[in-house]
Order: sequence, then structure tokens, then C-alpha cells
Amino acid sequence: MRNILLILEYDGTNYHGFQRQAGQLTIQEVLEGAIARITKEDIVRVTAAGRTDAGVHARGQVVNFKTLARMPARDFMPALNSILPGDIRVRESREVPLEFHARFDAISKVYGYTIQRGTYLSPFLRNYAHHVPYPLDVEKMRLAGSFLIGRHDLTSFCASGSETKTSVRTIMNLELVEKGDLLTLIVEADGFLYNMVRIIAGTLIDVGRGRTPPGALPEILAGRDRRLAGPTAPARGLTLLSVKYKDSSTGRAPHRQGA
Amino acid sequence: MRNILLILEYDGTNYHGFQRQAGQLTIQEVLEGAIARITKEDIVRVTAAGRTDAGVHARGQVVNFKTLARMPARDFMPALNSILPGDIRVRESREVPLEFHARFDAISKVYGYTIQRGTYLSPFLRNYAHHVPYPLDVEKMRLAGSFLIGRHDLTSFCASGSETKTSVRTIMNLELVEKGDLLTLIVEADGFLYNMVRIIAGTLIDVGRGRTPPGALPEILAGRDRRLAGPTAPARGLTLLSVKYKDSSTGRAPHRQGA
Repeated sequence: MRNILLILEYDGTNYHGFQRQAGQLTIQEVLEGAIARITKEDIVRVTAAGRTDAGVHARGQVVNFKTLARMPARDFMPALNSILPGDIRVRESREVPLEFHARFDAISKVYGYTIQRGTYLSPFLRNYAHHVPYPLDVEKMRLAGSFLIGRHDLTSFCASGSETKTSVRTIMNLELVEKGDLLTLIVEADGFLYNMVRIIAGTLIDVGRGRTPPGALPEILAGRDRRLAGPTAPARGLTLLSVKYKDSSTGRAPHRQGA
Repeated sequence: MRNILLILEYDGTNYHGFQRQAGQLTIQEVLEGAIARITKEDIVRVTAAGRTDAGVHARGQVVNFKTLARMPARDFMPALNSILPGDIRVRESREVPLEFHARFDAISKVYGYTIQRGTYLSPFLRNYAHHVPYPLDVEKMRLAGSFLIGRHDLTSFCASGSETKTSVRTIMNLELVEKGDLLTLIVEADGFLYNMVRIIAGTLIDVGRGRTPPGALPEILAGRDRRLAGPTAPARGLTLLSVKYKDSSTGRAPHRQGA
């Protein structure tokens, strides 16, 4: 038995998210089907670092799966790419220690949320960015975002009704990167609550438009009530950029998978 | 009667090219339908600077149309964007002299052909780039391309069977721009023969792979035979970037529409 790690890129537009759902097309189902064809094994189960939602993309999703197949680990990359649809690609494949778990062993994940400003949404970004036609005060957004960095109960930034033992997470980094009319929110955290980045994005957009003062963020956090934060920004702007592991867990050197 | 100029961006993936064709979805049909809805006119005919093929994109296509509608010319932009599908967008709308013709008055057009190198085609570029998994010698490609600059009979770079009075065109500029694993061929000419940029791209890729020496280009040109040049690269890598007009023809200052 071996444990294989894959780094994936995918355009989530045509999928109902990563995780298998009866009657819906998902990344997991398509990927497991492709692996099963190659390994000729009946049951393949992949474990993903992040369960991306419908319409959410990935540039550095990490998954692992166990197999008895004897092909060299690095050959899974070209073999899978030859049969996967063009909107899912394997960037890298390699063997990892048997105990490696793509989700539990992740130290942090990095998500990007892309906003396009200006009068209209580019046809080339219509599935990859959220269009905000209003002027945004990026400095105010940065100030607001800075209050979220650190260890907090993020209940206000979690879709109501989601079940988690604790809503305390550590945001190691939160920044806004401008490039022309594109504005990308980058969030690195040790874990993400349901819709967390999309609610942070919606809240910071409200700040940028002047609807919410940056100084309101500590109160929004302290209130631990989803209704205090801004709207949930659309899924299409969100991309899982990379996942970080301890070198010891993957049995190898690279600090960051993806990115 | 007024003459309205539009600058368009579109993702050509889901269209059978710009020009109307019975029973096929085309940019022209969708655009004319949208203009007719806004002007409440029965017959709207747009003239485009370049007739892009199926799967070819545009970032600066220019069209014009005549109308009796009295709305301010610049209001066509937001009005059309509110009803056009998300893969077609109007960047700008304005009135031009009645005699302006988007195709006949164009001094030059600029096309870009995007190649992605590396082991696999990015899911995010699968409709916008041609994947070349082989190493390419870009300096050899540049040398080969330099032979095409100037006024030439470009029969060897024209799909056979196409009807044109003359195959002589002037290529004002041809360059290869590298950005990471992307390589973009930029061609500016006073006119383009059928599949011309795609055949130039296919020929330069053959040069980059070492299949054709750069010095063969003068012979390929002189032979005036399509069979001498390389294969026609796929449509998805091609984008109409911009169209240039004399200031006098559009009645205004900007040198380059689009870009």
C-alpha cells in the first residue's frame, strides 16, 4: 500500500464543488473515476485539503489517496492529465508517508478572492472574478482587514447553520493586492469556516464602498453573529491558492504546495 | 441617421465566429439582436473590422452601425452590456462620421496568438491558449518571424481555397513576447488573409521545435504555396487585440481602438 499526493488546478465553474454529492458532478467524483481507471482498483477515495464549493476554483489544491498500484508515483501526473477533462489538471504527483492526511496535516491554506473594478466585467474573467462597479477605498479595506489577523472566534464570518465544534481560527495573513482594475484579497489561515473568505470579501467590499467603517470590524468580530458582517460575495471570485504542510508530514522539503 | 462605433471584447469559445451564419450562434447575430432591442429598429446591420473565426476572441474588435435612434451614443455601452450575455462586452460606444466604415477605414489590425509551454495546459487557459509541450527556441522563432515583416505575397500563409483578389499584405510588426510559460505572437498588418496568423503561429512553432530552420522563411514566402508553411495552429489561441484608424476617419483623437 502506498500513499500518493496530488497537487491540482481546476476551474470549478462547471462543478458542484469538490466533495461528492449524489446526482451532481463534482471534482472528487471525476478525479476518483480517473484514478480508478489508471490503478484498475474498484474503490478509490481521495482526501482533499479544502472542500471547495460549487463554482470555486483551485490553483494548488492538495489531495492524497491510498493505492496498491505499482506505477511510479510521478507517472500519475501525466497519466491522469491524459484522461481528465481540460478543466482539471494535476500539477504534481508523488509518494508521501502512509500516515499523511491532506486535510489534517495542513498547517495553513491560502485562498484568493478576486474583485474586478471598473464599468463592466471582462468576458475573460466572468467565471473568475466578482464585479464591483463602485469605487473602493482600498486603504480603508486594508485597515478593516488588519483587525481580522490573529486568533479569533470567527462566528460572524461563518454561514449560519454550519456545524463546527469551534469557530476559533487563526488568520496568519490577510492582504489586498492591486493590479490594474483587479483587486485580490489573499487570506492565509489554519482553517476556514463555511463561506468565511466570501463573507470577509463581502464585508471588506462594504467597507471599501463606505457602507461600513473600518473601525466596526472589532465589534463585528466580538458580536459573534453572522448578521453583523457583510454579504457573502459570489463563489466565482474564490480560488484555493495553496496549502502548507510541515516538511516532516510530506516527507519532503517544499514549504508550500501550490502557489 | 447616425453612425455608432462600438469597441467590443468577447470570449469566442461558444460562438461560430463573428459573421452571421444560418443555424449557428454568432457574435454578429447576438449583437445585432441586442442593438435592435435597444433602438427598437427592425433591421440592424453591424460592420466589423475583422471577421473572427469560431473560437477566436477579441479584446478590441471595432464595429459600426447606422441608426435613427436618438439616445446619446455613449449610452449604448451600458445599455448593451445590460442585455448582452457575459461573454460579449462593449468597452466603448460613440458617434463617428456617417461615412466611417469599421473594415475599409482600418489602417491596421493587431492580433495576438498565445502559446502555453510546460507539461500541461492550465485549466484557466484551456480556451485561450495553444499548449506546446516541447521546448521552443524563441530566438530562432524571432529570427524566422523577422523575415515576414514588410510587404509580401503571403499566399503560403493563407488557407487554400480562400478567395481574395490579392494575397499581398504588409506586416508592420511581428514580435514574440514571453511572460513565464506564456509566449505570445503579436502581428500587426494592414490586412489578414484567411487563417494567416494561425498559419504563421504554426510555422514559427515548427521553427521553435527545430523542425524548420529560420532561414527557410524567405523560401516559404517565395514559393507562394500553402503546403510549404507549417500547420494551422488552433483557433483558441487567437485574439483580435486592436484596430487602428486615421483620426480623421473616426472624427476623433485616439490612435488605437482597443489594446
